[in-house]
Amino acid sequence: MDEFSLIQTYLAPLAGAGGFGLLDDAAIYKPRGGFDLVLTKDSFVEGVHFAKGRYGADTAERLLRTNLSDLAAKAARPAGYLLSIAWPNRADIKFFAGFAAGLRDAQQSYDFTLFGGDTVRTDGPMVISATFIGEVPSGQMVTRSAAQIGDDVWVTGTLGAAMLGCHYVTGKAIIPPPTGPALWAFENAYLRPEPRLLFRKALRQYASACADISDGLLSDARHIAKASAVNIMLNFNRIPFAPDAKDWALAQDDPLAALIELLTFGDDYELIFTAPANMSEGLLAAASKTGLRLTKIGHVSESSDAPKVTCQDAQGNVMIFPKTGYTHF
Amino acid sequence: MDEFSLIQTYLAPLAGAGGFGLLDDAAIYKPRGGFDLVLTKDSFVEGVHFAKGRYGADTAERLLRTNLSDLAAKAARPAGYLLSIAWPNRADIKFFAGFAAGLRDAQQSYDFTLFGGDTVRTDGPMVISATFIGEVPSGQMVTRSAAQIGDDVWVTGTLGAAMLGCHYVTGKAIIPPPTGPALWAFENAYLRPEPRLLFRKALRQYASACADISDGLLSDARHIAKASAVNIMLNFNRIPFAPDAKDWALAQDDPLAALIELLTFGDDYELIFTAPANMSEGLLAAASKTGLRLTKIGHVSESSDAPKVTCQDAQGNVMIFPKTGYTHF
Repeated sequence: MDEFSLIQTYLAPLAGAGGFGLLDDAAIYKPRGGFDLVLTKDSFVEGVHFAKGRYGADTAERLLRTNLSDLAAKAARPAGYLLSIAWPNRADIKFFAGFAAGLRDAQQSYDFTLFGGDTVRTDGPMVISATFIGEVPSGQMVTRSAAQIGDDVWVTGTLGAAMLGCHYVTGKAIIPPPTGPALWAFENAYLRPEPRLLFRKALRQYASACADISDGLLSDARHIAKASAVNIMLNFNRIPFAPDAKDWALAQDDPLAALIELLTFGDDYELIFTAPANMSEGLLAAASKTGLRLTKIGHVSESSDAPKVTCQDAQGNVMIFPKTGYTHF
Repeated sequence: MDEFSLIQTYLAPLAGAGGFGLLDDAAIYKPRGGFDLVLTKDSFVEGVHFAKGRYGADTAERLLRTNLSDLAAKAARPAGYLLSIAWPNRADIKFFAGFAAGLRDAQQSYDFTLFGGDTVRTDGPMVISATFIGEVPSGQMVTRSAAQIGDDVWVTGTLGAAMLGCHYVTGKAIIPPPTGPALWAFENAYLRPEPRLLFRKALRQYASACADISDGLLSDARHIAKASAVNIMLNFNRIPFAPDAKDWALAQDDPLAALIELLTFGDDYELIFTAPANMSEGLLAAASKTGLRLTKIGHVSESSDAPKVTCQDAQGNVMIFPKTGYTHF
């Protein structure tokens, strides 16, 4: 099957208005008056961001879900995306149908279309890259840079399950071995993270700054601290670990080190955000309406020096961590 | 140097308004009223789209120029781009400064800024991907699908030099060896193709359909034929070959085969477009104003069956070609 047939068979059905059935090299997007566009782009490399040889639906869907998480953190609605696929020569083309099915599932779950992109071959690992266009009412995008001194720090959902899911998917032993339901929850947390798009209206209304947790809670908190030129203090005992992940950590020789590992691994794709202290009630009501767990885990304070994130234990002592998150270089 | 320092040192200076100094995961773009957006995305794989190990300015600049050519074919003005870089572990980070300089040169030549993107590592070949946002007055985008029966077919500039430039850059012998100025012209045609952005107003005014020549004249003509459901007939003897490339072809054992090779290799990044027959005068005047060579090379006719592109020789005989252009699969 040549490039054009492959695109026409598997990708063209995913294209919406403006994508010209993928018969063109470009797409058209007619912006709605009164909206700003949010642009974001993220890539996956085989063997780095997904397991070697995993060319099917899982990988495609996770690429889109993680990009959608970037839009969720900006309080934006997804409109569509462009996709580049560098398909390995060693990967059978038969996997392409599954890959396209993963794209379709994510599109149907979150209501957006494919605008375009390109498909090429590579001798090396698979590299895929998505660029998303989102929209947000003019002037209402939530950034990382407007956290205010005195704000509360919040986190959505629970943390830690994605790390164990990643270990499972990449064949790394988890000891003690999780029971069936926990294993399924770990795998699902890693492969199908839930972009918190439904919370976008509440974010616009209440949040001062937001980031999604892709590199680890502490690392992403630091992104907000740095961009906002503030300090962030987190209360370690308030951090909402996924119960099964916490059970795993507590069964380790050094439970504290294991908990910290869960916080610095990343891949949770929950949101960390800051909001004025008097917004708690409104936030909790909005979260409750969308069935979302929301936890206040810290506060924003003045930074007299380089902005930093610290974590304090139940006794109020500042904790020291060896590393704060994932970096690529 | 870690990922964040690399981005802050080399890429942040390339970011414009809306890019947040690349401190955020997303960019904001405020669309101007009365304009549609044109979206396009293209990737380069090391060893496929550029020579192995060529990690510097040339490759970065060519990636942007070839993407700009897609916007030029749509009669759009570039606004900005997002860039994904999968940087090989074996490539020294010292090349990153040169790579960024190539991005900067293209940005300065064509007046657009960097919105964002991501930078990751790979064990395999380098893979880079750019997504461009262009703008065009509402409803005035030129597509591939509106060529009309009776239209003339035009091409900008000259063809063929890029193939010989590619051979030179990838170390393939060119026989007979070109003289100095010809070699420089070949190399330049391949590494620094000129996106025909200055011709966009004329395209909006006169053209019915347009494509840029990335896969080869015949292949890209076929894209227009297929999308417009028409036949395209080209006059072989009117095709404007680059003089030095034509000299090379005429010195080969089979000059005709060599000329056809020049037409089916691609990488010229000129524009092929269709326009009503009574638009010749206006088109030639507009081209002359921007110093652009413009050649009428054929015409559009009715397609009773599957749309096709044919080429006829000086005697009016239809020519048969073994392949029509580059395909990735």
